[in-house]
Amino acid sequence: MAKEGVETAEETEHMIEKDGGKDQESVLTAGDTKEMRAVVLAGFGGLNKLRVTKKVMPEPLEGEVKIRVKACGLNFLDLMVRQGNIDNPPKTPLVPGFECSGIVEALGENTKGFEIGDRVMAFVNYNAWAEVVCTPLEFVYKIPDDMTFPEAAAFSMNFVAAYMMLFEVANLREGMSVLVHSAGGGMGQAVAQLCSTVPNVTVFGTASPFKHEAIKDSVTHLFDRNVDYVQEVKKISPEGVDIVLDCLCGENTGKGLGLLKPLGTYILYGSSNMVTGETKSFFSLAKSWWQVEKVNPIKLYDENKVIAGFSLLNLLFKQGRSSLVKIVVDKLISLYNARKIKPLVDSLWALEEVKEAMQRIHDRGNIGKLILDVEKSPTPLMANDSTETSEAGEEEEDHEGDTDNKERMPFIQ
Amino acid sequence: MAKEGVETAEETEHMIEKDGGKDQESVLTAGDTKEMRAVVLAGFGGLNKLRVTKKVMPEPLEGEVKIRVKACGLNFLDLMVRQGNIDNPPKTPLVPGFECSGIVEALGENTKGFEIGDRVMAFVNYNAWAEVVCTPLEFVYKIPDDMTFPEAAAFSMNFVAAYMMLFEVANLREGMSVLVHSAGGGMGQAVAQLCSTVPNVTVFGTASPFKHEAIKDSVTHLFDRNVDYVQEVKKISPEGVDIVLDCLCGENTGKGLGLLKPLGTYILYGSSNMVTGETKSFFSLAKSWWQVEKVNPIKLYDENKVIAGFSLLNLLFKQGRSSLVKIVVDKLISLYNARKIKPLVDSLWALEEVKEAMQRIHDRGNIGKLILDVEKSPTPLMANDSTETSEAGEEEEDHEGDTDNKERMPFIQ
Repeated sequence: MAKEGVETAEETEHMIEKDGGKDQESVLTAGDTKEMRAVVLAGFGGLNKLRVTKKVMPEPLEGEVKIRVKACGLNFLDLMVRQGNIDNPPKTPLVPGFECSGIVEALGENTKGFEIGDRVMAFVNYNAWAEVVCTPLEFVYKIPDDMTFPEAAAFSMNFVAAYMMLFEVANLREGMSVLVHSAGGGMGQAVAQLCSTVPNVTVFGTASPFKHEAIKDSVTHLFDRNVDYVQEVKKISPEGVDIVLDCLCGENTGKGLGLLKPLGTYILYGSSNMVTGETKSFFSLAKSWWQVEKVNPIKLYDENKVIAGFSLLNLLFKQGRSSLVKIVVDKLISLYNARKIKPLVDSLWALEEVKEAMQRIHDRGNIGKLILDVEKSPTPLMANDSTETSEAGEEEEDHEGDTDNKERMPFIQ
Repeated sequence: MAKEGVETAEETEHMIEKDGGKDQESVLTAGDTKEMRAVVLAGFGGLNKLRVTKKVMPEPLEGEVKIRVKACGLNFLDLMVRQGNIDNPPKTPLVPGFECSGIVEALGENTKGFEIGDRVMAFVNYNAWAEVVCTPLEFVYKIPDDMTFPEAAAFSMNFVAAYMMLFEVANLREGMSVLVHSAGGGMGQAVAQLCSTVPNVTVFGTASPFKHEAIKDSVTHLFDRNVDYVQEVKKISPEGVDIVLDCLCGENTGKGLGLLKPLGTYILYGSSNMVTGETKSFFSLAKSWWQVEKVNPIKLYDENKVIAGFSLLNLLFKQGRSSLVKIVVDKLISLYNARKIKPLVDSLWALEEVKEAMQRIHDRGNIGKLILDVEKSPTPLMANDSTETSEAGEEEEDHEGDTDNKERMPFIQ
């Protein structure tokens, strides 16, 4: 899918005379081909590489569902993709985005189980940030009637990853304790909510102080992200914790392993150190990602510890485990229907405001998930020069680099 | 407890004029102190370091249960202890053995829940191979009326370790697959039986060909231990397996990790490479144990894999997790009562036959667990010169080193 999507972007790039703003008609070679708005990343780099253009609307292949997109999830991973700071980055130009919600508009052959008009959420291997998305039906899930589209777009990635890490990798049970970084983010909130579905689970979380009031009900012990969380946890629980969910990597892997109780599980689910203000160069950032210390299995044996890695996108798109994920989504929807979990949406942004949205996640300003609302018009109050889709100068790029990055953001899967 | 036990051995060593055979009275300094028979390891080394002597009978301290021992489990770990080939080996002389069954003979203060006459099995931090054992009540469990003492001595270590690895570390569920080495050993059989309590679990196992007929009902796919098990597994399941239980370590860690499906778990629970015939020197053996390759957490992230280490003895005696183990023992006894599991006893040996028993486990001759039967007299037919407790010459030692070790034995916890 992703590959097809990327090819589409490449194929149609030449058809678009120039970057198309909302009001600008593109010239298309195929006479009756429909078009759509999409966020396009022209090349890896800063916010100025993003723009909204018109693109050829995809049509569903066999086994694919065509979705009229209402809302898209914005994840930390999208910032890393923008920078090209991922393993085997795809070719640019590309349409970013891995999750969306919307209404089924058309169906390819062999898409039993779905009907036009179905309200759905979906994973996409890139190409989510567009008015229309086609993705294989194995990545599409019907949503409850009372789940809003922004909620649905905030749901799939964070809650599926949190659920699988807590319950399938780490085997969370009654009375256990969990440490999660960036507890105020979309992922952190999904973790905290899922922990609350198990009796007597203690959640330790780090977050910027201004978020503490908003998230204090979901996190048992909140620490300022600038303090030494190892010491803070040990003050409260000298024995450590049962589960550490780490999105920071680097030296935090050793810290996290050190905090585990016997039989405890450390899960690395991403790194966000790479885009903090302290290290501006992509190369040094990428290097820090790889500088995590290797783990000696004999030490794990001596200490009765477990270390795991979790990447939902790899699981879905590289390792063909969509059937496992489907089961998890069903369980999560049951929990949603039982009002035990509810995605926390931080804010809605028009496609044209994607840069401001990215800046907000980069600056760690969000509490919960940032959503691109496809039908939303840019908010005049929030629109300044940099919200224009046509150009974003180097000044903004510098601004991003100099941002006072007080909080490490989660690498949300 | 272990430390106390070792101290007892040291303290009483001077009281024993010379190595006491069964018929030989020791001279004891304390007039009314009772004595008992015990297997003593005089120093680290070969079989000739083992003898049966009389020792001062321990009396229970506060919180301890005094057990009249009926049967003791013999584990691969005991061979490693004999060689001193473990981390931080205790001082010799010592009484080996980590598990036993018997009848409660006396109780220290604060041992509520137990009564004299209770049939029990117990973990001991050394000192199990004796007529009497004292151990804290947290390590003592009542056994069902119809569980024989040899069964009970074969039960605790292997089934608790197998259960915790399969269900607490690895989260075994319906439809999964498990690879276990030395499927014919006590541990391998515990793993296979516990796998059979979950619907539709596939067990891949390695074992010497002569064992295949005996264990074929408990293992779905049996391989000769001399073949390349990676290729054999992949022929049957190209995707690999969900759980790898590895007692071989060294290069097998990489092989095991490579065989995992996404979300699969590799558990290192010991090494038996150390005492194979290929490497005769203790030092080179110990080195191979440490030569396991370190694991990069980022690789785990990319591949969605889990690596764990498990040491039941560390969990019990270093990490204070006896309450967790108690819960597991209760579950296992329920499974035993429901006739879903049953320890497989290979053979019974008198204390005086401990060398032959060790040789048998070393030579990989056993199918199931070897038990020291404390009330058994040495079998005349099996007794040759080397069964005498007084001495075992270097010839036997050489024989052990030269043994054609076709099968790696499990490091049974």
